[in-house]
Amino acid sequence: GSAPAIVHAQTALRWRLASSFPKSLDTIYGTAEVFAKKVGELSGGKFQISVHAAGELMPAFGVVDGVQQATVEMAHTAPYYFFGKDDTFALGCSIPFGLNSRQMTAWMYEGNGLKLMRAFYAKYDMISFPGGNSGAQMGGWYRKQVKSLEDIKGLKMRISGFAGKVLERMGGVPQSLPGGEIYQALEKGTIDAAEWIGPYDDLKLGFNKVAGFYAYPGWWEGGPQFDFFINHKAYEGLSAEYKAIVEAASAYAHIDMQAKYDQRNPIALKTLVAGGTKVVPFPKDVMDAAFKHSMDIYSELNAKNPEWKKIYEDLAAFRKDQNLWFRFTEATFDRYMQSVQL
Amino acid sequence: GSAPAIVHAQTALRWRLASSFPKSLDTIYGTAEVFAKKVGELSGGKFQISVHAAGELMPAFGVVDGVQQATVEMAHTAPYYFFGKDDTFALGCSIPFGLNSRQMTAWMYEGNGLKLMRAFYAKYDMISFPGGNSGAQMGGWYRKQVKSLEDIKGLKMRISGFAGKVLERMGGVPQSLPGGEIYQALEKGTIDAAEWIGPYDDLKLGFNKVAGFYAYPGWWEGGPQFDFFINHKAYEGLSAEYKAIVEAASAYAHIDMQAKYDQRNPIALKTLVAGGTKVVPFPKDVMDAAFKHSMDIYSELNAKNPEWKKIYEDLAAFRKDQNLWFRFTEATFDRYMQSVQL
Repeated sequence: GSAPAIVHAQTALRWRLASSFPKSLDTIYGTAEVFAKKVGELSGGKFQISVHAAGELMPAFGVVDGVQQATVEMAHTAPYYFFGKDDTFALGCSIPFGLNSRQMTAWMYEGNGLKLMRAFYAKYDMISFPGGNSGAQMGGWYRKQVKSLEDIKGLKMRISGFAGKVLERMGGVPQSLPGGEIYQALEKGTIDAAEWIGPYDDLKLGFNKVAGFYAYPGWWEGGPQFDFFINHKAYEGLSAEYKAIVEAASAYAHIDMQAKYDQRNPIALKTLVAGGTKVVPFPKDVMDAAFKHSMDIYSELNAKNPEWKKIYEDLAAFRKDQNLWFRFTEATFDRYMQSVQL
Repeated sequence: GSAPAIVHAQTALRWRLASSFPKSLDTIYGTAEVFAKKVGELSGGKFQISVHAAGELMPAFGVVDGVQQATVEMAHTAPYYFFGKDDTFALGCSIPFGLNSRQMTAWMYEGNGLKLMRAFYAKYDMISFPGGNSGAQMGGWYRKQVKSLEDIKGLKMRISGFAGKVLERMGGVPQSLPGGEIYQALEKGTIDAAEWIGPYDDLKLGFNKVAGFYAYPGWWEGGPQFDFFINHKAYEGLSAEYKAIVEAASAYAHIDMQAKYDQRNPIALKTLVAGGTKVVPFPKDVMDAAFKHSMDIYSELNAKNPEWKKIYEDLAAFRKDQNLWFRFTEATFDRYMQSVQL
């Protein structure tokens, strides 16, 4: 291909960003707006990015194709949506029993995460920038409490992508449903359970009215990262200054999403509990089965997907060290704070 | 005072930043360099900030005076160093049994933290930007293991500022020593114990060679935040674009410090343990006594310092909600990951 024309620092520029999320998901969709606003401020208004909700320019799951084909210059999405193209996408977002939010950011910024994922995304003519994290999500809504692994057998559960593979091996029946259809399916009993995000987002969709049990932890989403994907040629056409602006605006947006979730989730959780929702832990045999099946799946992927293997092994070594360290001062401080009357 | 002249977006500008840290503390000192580099990139090289180590332009603890008097345009420091001016400074950094790293960032970005602290710092003619967090620090190095509260009685311990008040009420004898003098004092037995930061920084100073026990958690520093302080007039003189650049470069540096600590601490911890260091938890009676005395001190401060009271009460309400929420999915996910063979 031809070398991209370099956009000079002061050039007025308009880009379009396709989000995989609806406007109603203000936390995640809003992160792209925070990003676009910062880019505008940092460029003195000269670099303008318009944010488009899922479906407006392309379907939610069409944004990688859209960026690759340069239909839009960039997207904001959850990389694991694209595990159907290649399971490796999930490593840049969240895999069951992966990294928590802080660990994921550390892997990206100071470990090999960003470097490795960018080398992978280059095959789709895109470059990535971390663009938010929700923190550990909840384990979903259940019409009947899951009291043992037996209760997973035959359970029809709305669960997102990659985690469905694990649920299937546990005897469950994963269902793919967009956010807007979950409520009715749960109400009618077409599905027995559904996971979405966490208290703030879940409360808005009203799942507490049609399912009584809210399980934790969301072992498949300990710290999912969202990404900004930018078409490679569009990015390479930017001046050094505009490239720096994209990076710094992403960093700001990255912090902001986690902060929003941390600020809003506790308030929503109190509302849910006051309304009668039972917040219940997954039984140990469920956790252990999910862990075992996840590790089996990773071994199988290591054997058949060299791209996955290279990145997964780096993530796994990082995860081991992180958990060794976090169990001491971080976990003990947190546990003490959670045990006292505040 | 006169209205500041507005620096236009394209104006070349040179600022000086006084750090409270030595260059040898590459994690924290380095954060100011990361910030300055990003400001340069974001401005196409026109806004240059030179970073000066502690002592180069002014003493480590002189930087608030330096910024207030406009000797330098800005500083990078740990706000709690200045609790002698007003205990309220500690709330912008870390108080015993305060917020963890993620919670602190959430309080700053989405709670009232930044707003309230800025209103307080305005009295010193400064505005603040979050500029890094170390995560929960370790509880220090001990020549003899602390096995009960009795062992704190008479313990001569190097401990930083505000936490010394708590140690004193527990019967300990807090000592003020710069980082560079701790090793010798521990070796000679002039002090019985010393806290510094965490594995990565502590290993570099070699404390493991002169004290065998490394305690956790650092209950006085569950998530200390570092800040960029900018002289109010210098800041108000910036164009909207340069103001946005300062904010976004700070956000990048804020993420980067925590990521550096998270990436480096586990590796250093393994080295320490391999070298014979005993990593030991504080006994419950020590934690409980520290918690009780801390809460007493906060009550006393509430009664006599209205500025403290206003901000502490906001932080305390936030802390209560955060710990209610974190105990469910975050803590349970982390605990499970720490319990399995990875």
